Amino acid sequence: MERCRLVFSGSGGQGIITAAVILAEAAVLHDDLTAVQAQAYGPEARGGASRSDVIISDSDIYFPKVIQPNVLVCLTQESYNKFYTIIRPGGLLITDTRYVKTWEKVDARQLELPMYLTVMEKIGKPIVFNIFMLGALISMTNLVRPESIMKVLETRIPPNFLEMNRKALLMGTELGAKYSQ
Amino acid sequence: MERCRLVFSGSGGQGIITAAVILAEAAVLHDDLTAVQAQAYGPEARGGASRSDVIISDSDIYFPKVIQPNVLVCLTQESYNKFYTIIRPGGLLITDTRYVKTWEKVDARQLELPMYLTVMEKIGKPIVFNIFMLGALISMTNLVRPESIMKVLETRIPPNFLEMNRKALLMGTELGAKYSQ
Repeated sequence: MERCRLVFSGSGGQGIITAAVILAEAAVLHDDLTAVQAQAYGPEARGGASRSDVIISDSDIYFPKVIQPNVLVCLTQESYNKFYTIIRPGGLLITDTRYVKTWEKVDARQLELPMYLTVMEKIGKPIVFNIFMLGALISMTNLVRPESIMKVLETRIPPNFLEMNRKALLMGTELGAKYSQ
Repeated sequence: MERCRLVFSGSGGQGIITAAVILAEAAVLHDDLTAVQAQAYGPEARGGASRSDVIISDSDIYFPKVIQPNVLVCLTQESYNKFYTIIRPGGLLITDTRYVKTWEKVDARQLELPMYLTVMEKIGKPIVFNIFMLGALISMTNLVRPESIMKVLETRIPPNFLEMNRKALLMGTELGAKYSQ
């Protein structure tokens, strides 16, 4: 497995830290990988461009901050504007159609996915936006198995919300599968 | 303000990552500080000795992993056994009376607090153990204000669980105040 360095970016309340923690736990606890996960908060976090980093590997990882991600997810225009330049050449840059309207030219595969709109249309609850995004991400990258994400969710989410999360994850993987390479 | 390097350790389900994320957010969003927060998961995370790191400062922070914490919290015997040696000489080492029974000699202030027992006796819900711990911690260290923690909780916790969390935080600060220096 190639080492994967991811940055999730967006604004507070979009659940990017939770998504990063869930992804890292799934990789370590259920897919026999190693992971580090970190967030660095500066003054810009107060403005709405926060980021959460994950590195997943099958060997030891020493430095937890991602310098040049090969996968970058931007869930707001502000976070896109702030972070799009850090994408590794040839990497994958995912944005959400509802939140990111203006793109710049980058040397990466840039994908605009209707994640928020699909969540609102099919489930109607913005709270599972981050889980839908995780579903799309893992189906495009084959980083961890959907079952591993579900196992982590089962330990974190009250039983009455689990079905909604399962649905969001599954629908995310279906959307991602259309773009899988 | 002196830079504070904290390590929370324990087993999955005790909420140490959530506590670390909440503490970092409170510091950055409401107390005008800078923070980085990270978890590195290795094979030992599968066994029950996971850790979560926070650095809080009033200036820039470059390296997110804590090498020698000046505050170390251990919520299981296994995590204590694994991490007690990393405490900075002269630092503060907090354990929970229910979970850590055997101590080693360290060159640090070692405090055994009945956090879990108090939570179970006064609130009866283990889910707020981590918030009680945060309350005790901030009242002993004056790292961030309790109101700042509450503001973060208000954005993360469903309204019907907020009162229970407020109570856990407050009771934690009261226990911590007895040991404040």
